[in-house]
Amino acid sequence: MEIGIIGLGKMGLNLALNLLDHHHHVFGYDANPESATAISHKNFQQHHSVRDMIQDMETPRTIWLMVPAGDITERVIAEITPLLDKGDTIIDGGNSNYKDTVKRHQQLSEKGIYLFDCGTSGGTDGARNGVCIMIGGDADKFKEIEPLFSDIAVENGYLYTGKSGSGHFLKMVHNGMEYGMMQSIAEGFDILHKSDFDYDYEKVAKVFNHGSVIRSWLMELMENAFSKDANLDEIRGIMHSSGEGKWTVETALDYQVAAPVIALSLMMRYRSLEDDTFTGKVVAALRNEFGGHAVVKS
Amino acid sequence: MEIGIIGLGKMGLNLALNLLDHHHHVFGYDANPESATAISHKNFQQHHSVRDMIQDMETPRTIWLMVPAGDITERVIAEITPLLDKGDTIIDGGNSNYKDTVKRHQQLSEKGIYLFDCGTSGGTDGARNGVCIMIGGDADKFKEIEPLFSDIAVENGYLYTGKSGSGHFLKMVHNGMEYGMMQSIAEGFDILHKSDFDYDYEKVAKVFNHGSVIRSWLMELMENAFSKDANLDEIRGIMHSSGEGKWTVETALDYQVAAPVIALSLMMRYRSLEDDTFTGKVVAALRNEFGGHAVVKS
Repeated sequence: MEIGIIGLGKMGLNLALNLLDHHHHVFGYDANPESATAISHKNFQQHHSVRDMIQDMETPRTIWLMVPAGDITERVIAEITPLLDKGDTIIDGGNSNYKDTVKRHQQLSEKGIYLFDCGTSGGTDGARNGVCIMIGGDADKFKEIEPLFSDIAVENGYLYTGKSGSGHFLKMVHNGMEYGMMQSIAEGFDILHKSDFDYDYEKVAKVFNHGSVIRSWLMELMENAFSKDANLDEIRGIMHSSGEGKWTVETALDYQVAAPVIALSLMMRYRSLEDDTFTGKVVAALRNEFGGHAVVKS
Repeated sequence: MEIGIIGLGKMGLNLALNLLDHHHHVFGYDANPESATAISHKNFQQHHSVRDMIQDMETPRTIWLMVPAGDITERVIAEITPLLDKGDTIIDGGNSNYKDTVKRHQQLSEKGIYLFDCGTSGGTDGARNGVCIMIGGDADKFKEIEPLFSDIAVENGYLYTGKSGSGHFLKMVHNGMEYGMMQSIAEGFDILHKSDFDYDYEKVAKVFNHGSVIRSWLMELMENAFSKDANLDEIRGIMHSSGEGKWTVETALDYQVAAPVIALSLMMRYRSLEDDTFTGKVVAALRNEFGGHAVVKS
């Protein structure tokens, strides 16, 4: 198939290479014209504007967005929509908020343009060698473009999840689960670290990965991380987050789902961003007020 | 090697079969004489008392306990200690509290008897076909009995973890991590379940297991569970626990480790045991007192 990729960063570039491996014809555009110089392939053509790229493609077109969620996705869709024809398809491969996706799907379908929301997991290596994708959108149209997904996914690694938004929603919840799983693994290693025993964490992660109940890809990544830095001395415990955990918690609140562990995993990330906290000052001040307990001075 | 197993329940029986596969000579005893009738093997001999079993074995003996942690383990060790000779070895394959293990190790070493603590993961299937084991105890003696562990473990599935207690401690923390991972996975599925989308949970678990960041054995077990009962209609959400999560939290408190997700996973299990809670009554009563908010009558 012909496919146009907008956004040739780490994910987009690897996706392009993956599609080329599977004999698709790839058109590419990135705001940074240097981005795709790594690709030299007879079926790859880079354009210097989205307009050029879209004009070059046969209809009905399939455009895959691999750009950051939020404003940039919004802007790119606004830019390309007038250039597209009825029957064309946009695939949003970023981590867009599913509520935005549902709104955009509604707007685009009024113009006869299909929008698929595509949650992608597996990191850049997955994009290159086999992704895990969850796809929401129009069921009939999905069948037409399904080969794209089956080609680039690992075996059994793609799922049509239903109506618009369901792909991004599922990916969001996947990331929420990931937050809690990571925090739990991390707390366990912290307990080992503060214990009176002397564990080799790389070996611990390795034995956990061979036959234990908690064997997992995350534990394999831990094995890898400890192999490079046995006590993680070179890393500070600052846990950034990219928004999907927050949305999962907001969604749990919307639906009144008790999801305390995912919520607390997110809060612990926020806590890690601060060296000191106002919460800590307040509690220290109160202990001093009622009991005369000493405070640690700034 | 010659090995005597005390406790031929699901785990002990499978362990015996696994050892027999690897050409060990297995002596067995269980309080219930019917327990091992499934085993008929030239290298297996069942005894009707631990005394008979121990007298039948050549010294130095290796006795593997596969009995429930706590009182029963305590009683069995008290019973067999006088029957053992200096240089004999006891392997405690149950989920004993590591503090008990350290105490018992001290007492037994005064008599010249070795005690190894052996945390075992992987369930009954693991015991049969390849366990994951973490072993604490005397380093030199470990080398003598190491073939036992390498034989019954999956490849790379055993680890000598250091001094006495370290094997049970590590298994305890493993289970603590497991609590948090399970709770996080569960909360994610709950959000999916209460959402406006219509997911096939078996397919969701399956796609998660193919290339996603959260692929794991626990997610494979979910796929299996959903394949048998698509919405888990036949299961009530009562989450029992067997003690290791509680010990992990107690240990986190002892060492002042912030482990909120593991702690909360345990609390959510406790919450699940009650249809109604006194906490709920108290909050409802207070809302009624200060704001006249209606309560739901018993």
